[in-house]
Amino acid sequence: MSEAIIVTGAAGFIASHIVDRLLAEGHTVTGIDNFLLGRRENLVEPLQDSRFTLIEADLANADEAASVFAAVQQRQPVTQVWHMAANSDISAGIADANVDLRNTFLTTYNTLEAMKRHGIRRLAFASSSAIYGDLPVALTETTGPLFPISNYGAMKLASEAIISAAVESHLERAWLFRFPNVIGHRSTHSVIHDFIRKLRANPRELEVLGDGNQQKNYLHVRDLVAAMFSIVELGQDKLNWFNIGNRDAGATVRFIAESVIEAMQLAARIRYPGGAKG
Amino acid sequence: MSEAIIVTGAAGFIASHIVDRLLAEGHTVTGIDNFLLGRRENLVEPLQDSRFTLIEADLANADEAASVFAAVQQRQPVTQVWHMAANSDISAGIADANVDLRNTFLTTYNTLEAMKRHGIRRLAFASSSAIYGDLPVALTETTGPLFPISNYGAMKLASEAIISAAVESHLERAWLFRFPNVIGHRSTHSVIHDFIRKLRANPRELEVLGDGNQQKNYLHVRDLVAAMFSIVELGQDKLNWFNIGNRDAGATVRFIAESVIEAMQLAARIRYPGGAKG
Repeated sequence: MSEAIIVTGAAGFIASHIVDRLLAEGHTVTGIDNFLLGRRENLVEPLQDSRFTLIEADLANADEAASVFAAVQQRQPVTQVWHMAANSDISAGIADANVDLRNTFLTTYNTLEAMKRHGIRRLAFASSSAIYGDLPVALTETTGPLFPISNYGAMKLASEAIISAAVESHLERAWLFRFPNVIGHRSTHSVIHDFIRKLRANPRELEVLGDGNQQKNYLHVRDLVAAMFSIVELGQDKLNWFNIGNRDAGATVRFIAESVIEAMQLAARIRYPGGAKG
Repeated sequence: MSEAIIVTGAAGFIASHIVDRLLAEGHTVTGIDNFLLGRRENLVEPLQDSRFTLIEADLANADEAASVFAAVQQRQPVTQVWHMAANSDISAGIADANVDLRNTFLTTYNTLEAMKRHGIRRLAFASSSAIYGDLPVALTETTGPLFPISNYGAMKLASEAIISAAVESHLERAWLFRFPNVIGHRSTHSVIHDFIRKLRANPRELEVLGDGNQQKNYLHVRDLVAAMFSIVELGQDKLNWFNIGNRDAGATVRFIAESVIEAMQLAARIRYPGGAKG
């Protein structure tokens, strides 16, 4: 059944793929983005679709959030929000806690307040494995304690918490997706991007931090989106929360470095300064 | 060793007992309170002590928080903050999420920002068992998942999360106390207060919700304070977190009702409308 759906942070890497999928399923979609990190070119195709509307607004601002939701709601009653707006630059949030406070937590808070006012009762939220911090155990959905080591993770956990409370009052259903490292079309930062940047600067040698054996677990955005839509379809509890990721231990940084060099058709040698951490 | 210590929310029930104890240990104490819930009469004795200063300020306001910390710090370098300022009226926060956002979370956020600016590196924080929500298991320090059912619990969890991130950057040590129900001198709300109020209105009959067999676990504020000071003394990790509470299953509401009637020297009969929940 076709619904009217809001996607916040719509011009971001992952959110833009969600917009694509929602339109493909026949829904009417309003994207909201403040274009701090989002890019209009991620939405080239949706912008040619009459069922897609893009609004520039800063949901961290309570007044702006209230008025943009009121405007969307007046056009057509919204049934569902995909709240993807967030800071994704972890180091920016370490330098200034206000970045994650505003762009991750207050966008969630203001989105929930607007949903409450307008009776929009279903919310899908982009959480993160960063809420677990540095736990030395395998992460499951019931693992505790939750002590994030970055403001990024802290404000994702704060967002989960306020959504959890909202499920007890005005939400009918919420889905929390705890994302792993995600790669794919339209992504803006990852070790792959770093390697490409370094190799463009020096095509003969690539310095790789650590000893190359540290492993990183990546998921392709196509698989991530498939997982999210399955969870929304099948997750019929009031609160549904899932870690999304691969089962394997991930690719070694050595393998990633070699693959990037091969894909760029270079003959660079790799230099490892050593140490177990990258 | 005598230190200069800030207690936020100093005029509140539990915080005022902490002020008493810190002064008794020989410290210099600055209390900060916005007097939304705090009461000046809780600090009658400290106010006669030259080592105690009371400042009226709203730490939910970033500018006010910054200037009050700057002023205190200028007098004498502060080494430790007991952050007890918070909303304690759970139903007020259910009616308006902004109450817990401001009074619980933003006071924590602004306190951390001020501590970072002034290099104050040790923080004791009043968290709550409400961060666990309605979990049907015994609560331990590693229990998960954490899905609070009130904005009160959500903003306590958000505070823990941002403190946890701060421990990775600018804090040297933090102690998180997860409080149970606390009673004792200067407390302002509990089922005991409700019964006294009802009996003053009608000394012949006391209506007790539920069937009287539901149990509530209470801790006396004297024992709570003793536990907190032991934890601060012994908890030498960067992040120390403890559930504080009794080991027993608690007192039945029937026992509490009978005790209140006896203490008030009344002969009221107790009426139970039934149902397992109070």
